[in-house]
Amino acid sequence: MALADRWLLPDGIMELLPPQARQVELMRRKVLDLYHRWGYELVMPPIAEHLESLLTGVGHDLDLNTFKVTDRISGHTLGVRADMTPQVARIDAHRLRTEGASRLCYCGSVLHTHPANMLASRNPLQLGAELYGHAGSDSDVEVISLMLATLEAVGLQGTISLDLGHVGVFSRLMELCQLSAQAQEDYQDMLQRKALPEIDLFVDGLASVSDQTREWLKQLPRMNGAADVLARAEALFGEDAELVKAIRYLGDLAERIKARYPHVDAYFDLSELRGYHYHTGVVFAAYTPEYGQALAKGGRYDNIGADFGRARPATGFSADLKTLLDLSGCLEEPSEPVILAPAGEGKDLQAAIAALREKGERVVQQLKGETDQSGQYRRHLVAEADAWVVKDR
Amino acid sequence: MALADRWLLPDGIMELLPPQARQVELMRRKVLDLYHRWGYELVMPPIAEHLESLLTGVGHDLDLNTFKVTDRISGHTLGVRADMTPQVARIDAHRLRTEGASRLCYCGSVLHTHPANMLASRNPLQLGAELYGHAGSDSDVEVISLMLATLEAVGLQGTISLDLGHVGVFSRLMELCQLSAQAQEDYQDMLQRKALPEIDLFVDGLASVSDQTREWLKQLPRMNGAADVLARAEALFGEDAELVKAIRYLGDLAERIKARYPHVDAYFDLSELRGYHYHTGVVFAAYTPEYGQALAKGGRYDNIGADFGRARPATGFSADLKTLLDLSGCLEEPSEPVILAPAGEGKDLQAAIAALREKGERVVQQLKGETDQSGQYRRHLVAEADAWVVKDR
Repeated sequence: MALADRWLLPDGIMELLPPQARQVELMRRKVLDLYHRWGYELVMPPIAEHLESLLTGVGHDLDLNTFKVTDRISGHTLGVRADMTPQVARIDAHRLRTEGASRLCYCGSVLHTHPANMLASRNPLQLGAELYGHAGSDSDVEVISLMLATLEAVGLQGTISLDLGHVGVFSRLMELCQLSAQAQEDYQDMLQRKALPEIDLFVDGLASVSDQTREWLKQLPRMNGAADVLARAEALFGEDAELVKAIRYLGDLAERIKARYPHVDAYFDLSELRGYHYHTGVVFAAYTPEYGQALAKGGRYDNIGADFGRARPATGFSADLKTLLDLSGCLEEPSEPVILAPAGEGKDLQAAIAALREKGERVVQQLKGETDQSGQYRRHLVAEADAWVVKDR
Repeated sequence: MALADRWLLPDGIMELLPPQARQVELMRRKVLDLYHRWGYELVMPPIAEHLESLLTGVGHDLDLNTFKVTDRISGHTLGVRADMTPQVARIDAHRLRTEGASRLCYCGSVLHTHPANMLASRNPLQLGAELYGHAGSDSDVEVISLMLATLEAVGLQGTISLDLGHVGVFSRLMELCQLSAQAQEDYQDMLQRKALPEIDLFVDGLASVSDQTREWLKQLPRMNGAADVLARAEALFGEDAELVKAIRYLGDLAERIKARYPHVDAYFDLSELRGYHYHTGVVFAAYTPEYGQALAKGGRYDNIGADFGRARPATGFSADLKTLLDLSGCLEEPSEPVILAPAGEGKDLQAAIAALREKGERVVQQLKGETDQSGQYRRHLVAEADAWVVKDR
């Protein structure tokens, strides 16, 4: 590599410089304190661990997205975490072993072999919260509320919309029509592209599927939009109790979220399959018009603990703190300009500097030979008759 | 890997669970705020970048200690950082390009192929501060002071001692005696083991070295201890102006530090060669009797910027935040026990919960079916005639 290229970062890898880094730090504190007040306990899983732990129960995508290294001590393959959620699930299942509900939160760097989308970096600062051990809608309402409270805390209130889906709808349809693995994958792919004519053609060609189910498979990609979708879906799927149950679950959830966050509009998409491999119930994501991707997203994933040998219901969300900072603008820090103190060891001078810092002031002590050429310091510590005082330039 | 082993962490990899994780978070804030008040700007370099950037100018040890992966996007080799110092040097040299002094600080996870010592984890939470662009002793005094202030901030004052060395002494001796690369390496190895009889034998066998230098090479490993070492060293090396200069530099430094931190005892070791490959001047480390390794350490490394194509004087230190937490015990968070609020969506209830959280209280809202079996909640939110009130159980 040429000398001049040595200091360039790899494509898609980002770093934070002053003053953004400090703003991310302040935002991190704000959000972690919010989780703390909601009763969520902070955990700090390691940046690398056994690959099997990182990939347990989460599907193929994360495998492709995880950098692997060989541990020279054990010979085992380690992964650099691409997602902290499986780590937190492992902690709930095996380190904490709480019997009742367990509320955990985290914030840390993850690394992706490829960016998650065109707007994303390969090293997001992932933050999130997970609620284990409760299966009812109360826990889904709680984590969705906390996700919306997170966006409010970083100054994004007012422009947020909430997308809701339920992978139970898709699973139930697959159960009813018993497609081959390949056919299911094809259908899923068309569904994600919302390729309506292709889907119609595909469904017409399916053997041994009832007319009813055939119609359902065709209509599923049309089941998205505002609140009226749920009524349409209930009319469509009315004959199957399980489908109706999933739809009513979403309706109930949306109503409760609306009561708490009246300014947040909910949209529904019953064909949403994000994370279908590990999600088991409701899936949700928050959007803002200024950004083409989800700001934060999550869902229910009741099976992940089972893969660790201890099944626990689970629901949670995550976001990239750097993306939130980009969208929310600066967090202003209420502080005065930096004070420049003269060089020297005089006891009074050192005490004066220490006292100012103790009060929360930022004080830079000049180094011998250093001058304030650029005039960046607007306040100076100067000796008056019998004391050190701060003077504006 | 067996199911039961899947959730075990690799040897030497540690994670932080509640309540320690929150304590580390609070300690992180305390220390970063300290650096902020001293005028140090926070940077957040990425957890992985081009291997060449990570290893530039830092020597072979770090290479062995760095996990490598291939970037599928570019085909280049990336390293997972094992040390953040070279990253911060790269940022100073090429991202910020400040002309005058530049004060930077950082805190983040690093990953080591092998633990740095028997007490260390392979994934420390490295924190540190670096001062670029100033070559005099003022900057060394400043970073050593900030290192000691860090240990005070986390509650370790009173037991700290400071070890000081100067790699200029060794370099000057090597310049004088012109050993072969192999002989230099052998001598260095014996020096680090303080193998006195071996050194005497080795030095006696050296050809074409003056008697004076021969004596210096034999005496160097004996030049360690309290303040009297400097007088002994000046008497010994008195004939070489450069050696005397290095010794007086240390004396001046120690005196200034003593004036600022009178309770910190300084020890000197002129044969200390930690980081000889990149350090160029004073090297320092802080110790406490309870821990067999340095709590924090650093030194001057004026050449690292040159390897990035922009030479800048530099001095700084780093520490592992997890080690500091282990030694300093808990940071108490001044907070009341968590309040348990009943389940439900009632507007008054949600408002009461929000108001408590706004005030800084921790409130967990009960989930339907969840009971406080273990009696972990000592305070409950209960409905009285016309308001929600917090009651002790």
